[in-house]
Amino acid sequence: MKLLEDKILSDGIAVNENILRVDSFINHQVDPALMMELGKELASHFKDKGVTKVATIESSGIAPALTCAMTLGVPMIILKKQPSKTLNSDLYQTIVTSYTKGTSYELTLSSKYITADDHVLIVDDFLANGEAATGALRLIRKAHATIAGIGILIEKSFQPGREKLTSQGIDVYSLARIKKMDKDYIEFIEE
Amino acid sequence: MKLLEDKILSDGIAVNENILRVDSFINHQVDPALMMELGKELASHFKDKGVTKVATIESSGIAPALTCAMTLGVPMIILKKQPSKTLNSDLYQTIVTSYTKGTSYELTLSSKYITADDHVLIVDDFLANGEAATGALRLIRKAHATIAGIGILIEKSFQPGREKLTSQGIDVYSLARIKKMDKDYIEFIEE
Repeated sequence: MKLLEDKILSDGIAVNENILRVDSFINHQVDPALMMELGKELASHFKDKGVTKVATIESSGIAPALTCAMTLGVPMIILKKQPSKTLNSDLYQTIVTSYTKGTSYELTLSSKYITADDHVLIVDDFLANGEAATGALRLIRKAHATIAGIGILIEKSFQPGREKLTSQGIDVYSLARIKKMDKDYIEFIEE
Repeated sequence: MKLLEDKILSDGIAVNENILRVDSFINHQVDPALMMELGKELASHFKDKGVTKVATIESSGIAPALTCAMTLGVPMIILKKQPSKTLNSDLYQTIVTSYTKGTSYELTLSSKYITADDHVLIVDDFLANGEAATGALRLIRKAHATIAGIGILIEKSFQPGREKLTSQGIDVYSLARIKKMDKDYIEFIEE
């Protein structure tokens, strides 16, 4: 999507071959009008897939998931990173390990909000190694729901996340796909 | 705001005199159309106050802050709960202690995104003891910005948060103000 690629080129900061800072419009400061356009574009791609819920992982995915869910006219579900104090049989939980960050967290979903009747679109800001998306998939499968696809703002296409997901037959739609980057250099995959 | 009060009465769960669950439309599952209406109402109250940025605390405040910022046509800033690994002089930080939850966290703001030129509206989902809002105020003051006000979805008016804020001369606008609650009982303050 040219709008997002242009924004990344003008306002993103490529720190090295792995780190892209988008603090000024996605992660820390958020441009609401841009988020609405990005959410609409994700919704447009998945509009005929029978999506019943949009799920995201707190917290950077919330803004694009909300605008996407708003456009599709379905609820958004926030998969929670903090373990609930009131652990019970109504919660699905899974551990997500980020190898790049060297951290783990527990991802939680209440069984009330995603059920076997749901066809779920996962939306997140970044796709790199695919750990978060894979964790979200595990939770949604625990709920016996089906996966409509995965919508991503920025994909680091040189990392294995997309391959892990598409090899399971999942439709992954990323608005900007970075082929290669380095300090002050960003190259996108041409669609 | 009648729309939110009615939603709380129909879908909220008053567990006891202190705990209100709104998991099904605000915290865990989010109703995007409702969030747009709530954001518009907050924006409407503050529209003539010269707001330049809407700030919120991750993560339950992001949805109403985004729709409010979208309506006002200004950026949204997400105050981050996790300490940044790259601590440096460009970050403002403060510790927020939640006495009810018995937890503390570090709230972080990059100095790039709120400056002395900003007039900031803080938006959050709940106001109870006011610890989170007070932490947000501290960060915004560290940035030498001024406060346009505080917009809240649900205020537990029987707790001291509002008084702590209004006693500093801050305009606090809450869409639903709970006077009293108990198991399966909720009473609002009539405006």
